[in-house]
Amino acid sequence: MSSETSRTATARIGVTGLAVMGRNLARNLARNGYPVAVHNRSVERMKSLVAEHGDEGTFVPAETLAEFVDALERPRVAIVMVKAGGPTDAVIDELAELLEPGDIVVDCGNAHFADTRRREAALKEKGLHFVGTGVSGGEEGALLGPSIMPGGSKESYARLGPVFESIAAKVDGQTCCVHVGPDGAGHFVKMVHNGIEYADMQLIAEAYDLLRAGLGATPAEIAEIFRGWNEGDLESFLIEITADVLAHTDHRTGKPFVDVVQDQAEQKGTGRWTVQSALDLGVPITGIAEATFARSLSGHADQRAAAAEAFGGEAGAGWVKDSDRDAFIEDVRKALYASKVVAYAQGFDHIRAGSQEYGWDIDLGSTATIWRGGCIIRARFLDRIRESYDANPDLPSLLVAPYFAEAVASGVDSWRRVVVDAVREGVPSPAFSSSLAYYDGLRRNRLPAALIQGLRDNFGAHTYRRVDAEGSFHTLWATPDKAEQAE
Amino acid sequence: MSSETSRTATARIGVTGLAVMGRNLARNLARNGYPVAVHNRSVERMKSLVAEHGDEGTFVPAETLAEFVDALERPRVAIVMVKAGGPTDAVIDELAELLEPGDIVVDCGNAHFADTRRREAALKEKGLHFVGTGVSGGEEGALLGPSIMPGGSKESYARLGPVFESIAAKVDGQTCCVHVGPDGAGHFVKMVHNGIEYADMQLIAEAYDLLRAGLGATPAEIAEIFRGWNEGDLESFLIEITADVLAHTDHRTGKPFVDVVQDQAEQKGTGRWTVQSALDLGVPITGIAEATFARSLSGHADQRAAAAEAFGGEAGAGWVKDSDRDAFIEDVRKALYASKVVAYAQGFDHIRAGSQEYGWDIDLGSTATIWRGGCIIRARFLDRIRESYDANPDLPSLLVAPYFAEAVASGVDSWRRVVVDAVREGVPSPAFSSSLAYYDGLRRNRLPAALIQGLRDNFGAHTYRRVDAEGSFHTLWATPDKAEQAE
Repeated sequence: MSSETSRTATARIGVTGLAVMGRNLARNLARNGYPVAVHNRSVERMKSLVAEHGDEGTFVPAETLAEFVDALERPRVAIVMVKAGGPTDAVIDELAELLEPGDIVVDCGNAHFADTRRREAALKEKGLHFVGTGVSGGEEGALLGPSIMPGGSKESYARLGPVFESIAAKVDGQTCCVHVGPDGAGHFVKMVHNGIEYADMQLIAEAYDLLRAGLGATPAEIAEIFRGWNEGDLESFLIEITADVLAHTDHRTGKPFVDVVQDQAEQKGTGRWTVQSALDLGVPITGIAEATFARSLSGHADQRAAAAEAFGGEAGAGWVKDSDRDAFIEDVRKALYASKVVAYAQGFDHIRAGSQEYGWDIDLGSTATIWRGGCIIRARFLDRIRESYDANPDLPSLLVAPYFAEAVASGVDSWRRVVVDAVREGVPSPAFSSSLAYYDGLRRNRLPAALIQGLRDNFGAHTYRRVDAEGSFHTLWATPDKAEQAE
Repeated sequence: MSSETSRTATARIGVTGLAVMGRNLARNLARNGYPVAVHNRSVERMKSLVAEHGDEGTFVPAETLAEFVDALERPRVAIVMVKAGGPTDAVIDELAELLEPGDIVVDCGNAHFADTRRREAALKEKGLHFVGTGVSGGEEGALLGPSIMPGGSKESYARLGPVFESIAAKVDGQTCCVHVGPDGAGHFVKMVHNGIEYADMQLIAEAYDLLRAGLGATPAEIAEIFRGWNEGDLESFLIEITADVLAHTDHRTGKPFVDVVQDQAEQKGTGRWTVQSALDLGVPITGIAEATFARSLSGHADQRAAAAEAFGGEAGAGWVKDSDRDAFIEDVRKALYASKVVAYAQGFDHIRAGSQEYGWDIDLGSTATIWRGGCIIRARFLDRIRESYDANPDLPSLLVAPYFAEAVASGVDSWRRVVVDAVREGVPSPAFSSSLAYYDGLRRNRLPAALIQGLRDNFGAHTYRRVDAEGSFHTLWATPDKAEQAE
């Protein structure tokens, strides 16, 4: 890279990879006054962006990656927005050849945090900064203001932060972008965000299913219930669009939209990553796991058909008396809220464990701030999470923060009634019931895990600890009344 | 390797790595008439084996790995029984230098099946067979007859099979060893075995907890209930030793043993591997996942203490009336049995999916045969599983096999009553309730997954399928009453 070419640099930042997310992010940057270099492997896509949206700001078109790099002011900031995996590695490798020490490569794709850690370490050896950045909010968010979760070094954030903070969503005048922590921290937090999104959606689906079965209500009637809920503690983007989806009528058939959609949920893998990571870290994120598995279950059409034939495919219907209607709806609302608190408590435990394991020093309260706007799980509720961690950064669990503890305690009877109804009537509610079992497990003075330890010692000499003495013990089970051996 | 030294070969098989499992496996081989070469990195351990047990058969002591290899008849069979991970790789590498094409390396340790696949491919390039073999049954099984799950090539099994089949456990004259399938198939099936073991133990723990809370019974009284159960369909090693552990009195304190053990369950990682693999394969093994997470939860002492303080640590107690006592016990027995059927159905789904993904062609009925004896989950029940897959190898789920479908259908009311009690009384039963939710989900005609698909299309344009037409669809949600766009 000669210093001559770099004198021609006219872009504050660049985006390579102009599929819909990259395209919208570039437009967002341009609209906010940042001259932005744009590049795409197939040049047509770059040209069409400039042709269609050139009036929104300053785009610096680049037909090759070398031109792209030349166009960037130093230290250069190159945002990579290509497919996760091999394509991302290929572009990063090519960029690394063209960039100079001190330059910054930003991956705004949906990378696994372990890949981000690997890439960050590799680029650091070349004197380059690598910033794995979680971006949530879909196409619309990328254009109008996403939730942005950057990892990477503090030094790179000093350069990048002002740009990202200005293009991110704003809530109450506060930006939805915070430096999460070093190397893979940003992509890790984005992964947990997606995991929580899985749980949130599964809980909403179970609430809908219970209302429909219990009340015999139509989707349009349930849409109205969700609209009402969106005025209270549950106010959130997902509750809002649930009402929209349930209220929608299919044009071909005149039926409720939700009844013409195949009931097989798909997934792109971040729920799976979240649960796999939580297993590695020993964090019980049962709500997210049940949500992820519920999607898998729904997709096994052959098994479902066989089971419906063997056992009958119906659940109870219309079991709620008219006089109990309002109370039932309120019970479901409280059950949804309490289960949601569990999902977030588990997700934040997961972030804390990841932060400890990988040395990220993540501020949990700030994380809640990032998610208040721009992203799929944006919700009023997140203010309470931020306040809880601000009040006590060492909170052992969100569940015991005063605000949430009171919410759960005041909802627990409703929660139990709803799960009892679901179990009795055969309405599958894996996330509701798993969240309640988690709550009951966490608060229990004595768990039957003691028996499991006894069994493990019996069949595998795995040893156990005692409640009344230090150290590991093993019982000689062949002659248990003769000896007990301390180790 | 000169042919001169190999003329001195006097051992049919060899074991390197003589910690307790390797030592007992070597003794088992010797006792069954196989001259066995024995080697250990620290020579003392090898010498003590020969000194203490030399009279049990023919041991050929080897002080170096080269001597060990020289001692083996061709084609050589070298069993490696060292710590999983790096130590296993180191020994395999060293052996590979000494062995000749056609020789067989057997890893009887607890390797991850992905490592086994990698090692098998690497040794195949050198003309060596690598046989990853799952061995279950703990120390006692290794000595007296374990359950053996060998992977690897058919060619290697022709040589190994007769040996393994003769030292394995026997049930009704049938050996508990079958060639599972190529490369990592043996270790994969062993992994799922351990996952099922996690679920089995968690279900037993929940049954015990419910009996104790509901009846206000003592551990000794519950031991008698388990002894009774061991006479029927639930007959199994784990039920048997549960009775032993519950009946045991602690000598220091005179208290029930289970009350002096710390209620924090530990784990060595195979439950975690199982759930992680099932997530990759899209198989909902919710029972195993809840069991794995229940162990994690039990270990978070700080969170548990905070939650017990915030919400009270007690569950209901003694809610079962004397007149309902027998009915309650029978309900818990049926709930345990039905939940156990779900855990096995999920585990066998997992094996089938792994077999398809990795091209192993595993016979599910044979797998059940292997586990009938020698291993931790050995149970009468496994005969029914074998019969079910023998009758219909394409069974979509164990749950719908006539025998199990009838067992579940006849137990489902009990199952619901027990979970309702647990939910109402606050006794955490994550595995019982998750298994029931799985059953209700699998058999349901319409799942609310349709709503999840609608939400995904709304916020992320992820598209959906319809019940009445082929193809993918996307609704233009900004103007939903104007257009619907097929893709």
